[in-house]
Amino acid sequence: MDFQLLDNLRQANPVVLNISNFVTVQDVANGLSALGASPIMSEEIAETEDMIQISQAVQLNFGAFTKEQVAHIQKMGQLANQYHLPVVIDPVAVSSVAYRHRIIPQLLQEFHADIIRGNTGEIAALGGFEWQAKGIDSGEGQGNRVAIAQKTAQKYHCVVIMSGAIDIITDGKAVTKVHNGNSLLQVHVGSGDMLSSISAAFAAISSQNLYEAAQMATLVMGLSGELAANAQPNIGPGTFTACLLDKLAQIQVSDLTQSAKFEIEAV
Amino acid sequence: MDFQLLDNLRQANPVVLNISNFVTVQDVANGLSALGASPIMSEEIAETEDMIQISQAVQLNFGAFTKEQVAHIQKMGQLANQYHLPVVIDPVAVSSVAYRHRIIPQLLQEFHADIIRGNTGEIAALGGFEWQAKGIDSGEGQGNRVAIAQKTAQKYHCVVIMSGAIDIITDGKAVTKVHNGNSLLQVHVGSGDMLSSISAAFAAISSQNLYEAAQMATLVMGLSGELAANAQPNIGPGTFTACLLDKLAQIQVSDLTQSAKFEIEAV
Amino acid sequence: MDFQLLDNLRQANPVVLNISNFVTVQDVANGLSALGASPIMSEEIAETEDMIQISQAVQLNFGAFTKEQVAHIQKMGQLANQYHLPVVIDPVAVSSVAYRHRIIPQLLQEFHADIIRGNTGEIAALGGFEWQAKGIDSGEGQGNRVAIAQKTAQKYHCVVIMSGAIDIITDGKAVTKVHNGNSLLQVHVGSGDMLSSISAAFAAISSQNLYEAAQMATLVMGLSGELAANAQPNIGPGTFTACLLDKLAQIQVSDLTQSAKFEIEAV
Repeated sequence: MDFQLLDNLRQANPVVLNISNFVTVQDVANGLSALGASPIMSEEIAETEDMIQISQAVQLNFGAFTKEQVAHIQKMGQLANQYHLPVVIDPVAVSSVAYRHRIIPQLLQEFHADIIRGNTGEIAALGGFEWQAKGIDSGEGQGNRVAIAQKTAQKYHCVVIMSGAIDIITDGKAVTKVHNGNSLLQVHVGSGDMLSSISAAFAAISSQNLYEAAQMATLVMGLSGELAANAQPNIGPGTFTACLLDKLAQIQVSDLTQSAKFEIEAV
Repeated sequence: MDFQLLDNLRQANPVVLNISNFVTVQDVANGLSALGASPIMSEEIAETEDMIQISQAVQLNFGAFTKEQVAHIQKMGQLANQYHLPVVIDPVAVSSVAYRHRIIPQLLQEFHADIIRGNTGEIAALGGFEWQAKGIDSGEGQGNRVAIAQKTAQKYHCVVIMSGAIDIITDGKAVTKVHNGNSLLQVHVGSGDMLSSISAAFAAISSQNLYEAAQMATLVMGLSGELAANAQPNIGPGTFTACLLDKLAQIQVSDLTQSAKFEIEAV
Repeated sequence: MDFQLLDNLRQANPVVLNISNFVTVQDVANGLSALGASPIMSEEIAETEDMIQISQAVQLNFGAFTKEQVAHIQKMGQLANQYHLPVVIDPVAVSSVAYRHRIIPQLLQEFHADIIRGNTGEIAALGGFEWQAKGIDSGEGQGNRVAIAQKTAQKYHCVVIMSGAIDIITDGKAVTKVHNGNSLLQVHVGSGDMLSSISAAFAAISSQNLYEAAQMATLVMGLSGELAANAQPNIGPGTFTACLLDKLAQIQVSDLTQSAKFEIEAV
């Protein structure tokens, strides 16, 4: 894994353009800014192309999914493809809300997503696998998570980040498992959306190797969460969120060298 | 009061569907998640019925009140009635903004609200009482708060939670007064909206006794606020908000047994 | 500088009506509330006049800039002028997004802005000056910041607050430079928007002297940020945000007397 990408990101300070959902948008913007990227958010389709032209990567979150937002997501995805910017998507609740299960696969035929980031249930739903889901959470179903992630990546010709107690990153063949993390990341509602946008930030500075970008985003987020959870004894989810932003700003390559826990399965 | 509902809630992890206002939505989602419920938020009317089908309770916040949102609120309220899900409403600023004073009573004829949660001014305005209000705050007018809460509950055939220095819960006859709380709950803008959504979470697991659900939601929120305010010396509203989420996650039945301060007036 | 305005603000508890962007709206509301003002936010044009009638100042943020919001901004600006309420605008990204560069100057012909608050790039763009900008940040271009601020204030017949490492306040002639602040204010995404709304709160209680209102808003925000950054050793941007809200609530005239660092250049 190329730990040096963390320093590269901070040096480049890439502009990451987001369609964010209104639940977590503040966290997403602050997470990007804390890490060392420049967030920009849009709600108006008429300014999309102007924003694409000043950005280095695009993150599309399907968490608030009005018809206007779906149209906006489609246009931004297409323009990002046209301008050769990496595109990260976060298919929120595709596994649990029937409406999204109908719309999202259609939407993904209109542009190419370079990285798909979701929980096990969401990735399984996109891949066409059965998986028990509940609400917006990933569910407790059974199945081979690695195989599901790989096949979904193959289906969409992209990199998949499957979040969970162990995070799985795959380009359809090679697989990385990241063990860093903390259960408070699941309690804090914005963690997944933050990881999606951070994946776009790494993609901006590693556009030739999106698998490495996805590896690093997942590791940096997981280890930042782990360090945040240890910042105070008996920490709760509110203080954790503040500490998570602190750690995203403070984490260094040396922390990765010292504390990263991951496995890479060669193809 | 049935303190055991707190453990029941955490065991059931109910899905609470929200129409939230954009000011406080992040707090509301994180408050539900911290307490042990599963939040889901919607902005698209076309996915409402699919979301109702995976939810156990509905919370409708009138804080951001576009015409699209009003239509969405109406549909979600009607579907929740049809699917027999408990409905909590939060009539933000009905007391101070003439437009809302016109629209909200009409809206409440379109579906049945099981619990109405507001400050004194808002409850008074719905009940048809005079009460001095200022901005979105509850105002300093005079009047018998208990009588106003009771008559408003009778008018709408529902449970009323009237927030204030002392919180009042009534089903139109029986009255509970909760004394736990802290003035920082008023400074933090999302506290009331959080209580409304937490009321829906308790309603989800106590749908046969919504008065008990409302009692417990108010007590848990008030005591969590009290414990949060004591978490640090000289605490301010920003640190308080983080600690409030911590306490919502950490509060136990034993804390209620030890520190709950409330009066129940038998009918 | 009239430090006493801080106590006046807390005594008056002015209602500040905002069109806020969805990225930072929660911070803006909590910042106003922490300081001692009453925030009210709107998304529905039909309730604008009713809200104007209960408010003492208006803040218009151009951060999320849908066509509906632009129409709403225009109407609220015009009504505020008609009702003689002070108007503060925040021209987010006018310097970097071509679409906004086209729309915003037209919009500012439809109503009068009393205070314009932006970073160097945004103020320069409104004034018609060349300035290098990147993303939504202020850019690193060259130029005489004081002269740009003065000429922009003259062009729009208003007070300008130009945020930066040193903040500049000018009515087109007199100039104040505020040195209090901390670099974490730039990392926290909502700081600028918060300052804009706090400027409206001070304008509400100093409507006869908006230059003094702008001075005090900038100083109070800068010193609160400085005190927040010193609240903990090795503080990061997440904990800083919580502490910033704490300090906005806790800052006193005596803190200003003791720690304010500013220069006033007589005309």
